[in-house]
Amino acid sequence: MREIRIEPMTSEAFRPFGDVIEAAGTATKLINGGRCERFSDLARLDFDGEGRAGISVFRSEAVTLPHLLDLLERHPDGGQAFLPLSADPFLVIVAPDDGGRPGLPRAFLTVPGQGVNYHRGVWHGVLTPLVQASLFAVVDRIGPGANLEEFRLAGPYLIVAG
Amino acid sequence: MREIRIEPMTSEAFRPFGDVIEAAGTATKLINGGRCERFSDLARLDFDGEGRAGISVFRSEAVTLPHLLDLLERHPDGGQAFLPLSADPFLVIVAPDDGGRPGLPRAFLTVPGQGVNYHRGVWHGVLTPLVQASLFAVVDRIGPGANLEEFRLAGPYLIVAG
Repeated sequence: MREIRIEPMTSEAFRPFGDVIEAAGTATKLINGGRCERFSDLARLDFDGEGRAGISVFRSEAVTLPHLLDLLERHPDGGQAFLPLSADPFLVIVAPDDGGRPGLPRAFLTVPGQGVNYHRGVWHGVLTPLVQASLFAVVDRIGPGANLEEFRLAGPYLIVAG
Repeated sequence: MREIRIEPMTSEAFRPFGDVIEAAGTATKLINGGRCERFSDLARLDFDGEGRAGISVFRSEAVTLPHLLDLLERHPDGGQAFLPLSADPFLVIVAPDDGGRPGLPRAFLTVPGQGVNYHRGVWHGVLTPLVQASLFAVVDRIGPGANLEEFRLAGPYLIVAG
């Protein structure tokens, strides 16, 4: 089976797929009398005209490595941001589009304090915490329609430690 | 000095001030082949016409108990949601409005997995993690204007363990 090695999550590597939501570089401004740094507006939120942004919570079972990847999905009507409500790293799987189907997947491992925002229409794996069953706040489109396209891979991949 | 005892954070107690963002009760739906519970649309996001929702990250120093409360603030043009990027509990201070100024404050302590959404115009304290300096994802209004009203309390309060 084809193997995909996990890469460290960086905003540069992830740029073709979305945004890394993290306190990186210089703060946009200092607030609260200098006690708090604000890093502003880190994710491109992009929803169709019938949808609006909402905040939900997902509670997902964990996966273990090596992880069999046989399904990818995308949201044609709006992107999706995942904000872990814990400091546990999690696995992020994405793929470029190749003529309407997923191309070669890539897998990234976050560090504590990182969230991700999948841009609208980007192929990605389902939520895959690694350490334990985990809670995530999710900012995505609330609106009519399923906003979901799934693609089952004829030849699955094995996601392995980098 | 007047003391305020910290209460447990519950959606019922917090209702006059905003939303508790958590996986509580029955999931809205099961996704990812039953591996993930989705609790949908848990926060009222309310921004004026010139603003839009954005995701930012705040990194705040911690406070210790007893905590001296001498400043409250509110955002007239849009609410503000705080989603901890760790499992550390944090302190949430709010106050009802009393003729344009804060009434008697209340203080709540979250449990792991809880975020909060301050409704537009609700008086609240600045970010107060208790355990250590902490990261929070923040969903709030991105737009023109300061969207900030501060009120320095003539008679401060001491926030003490419940």
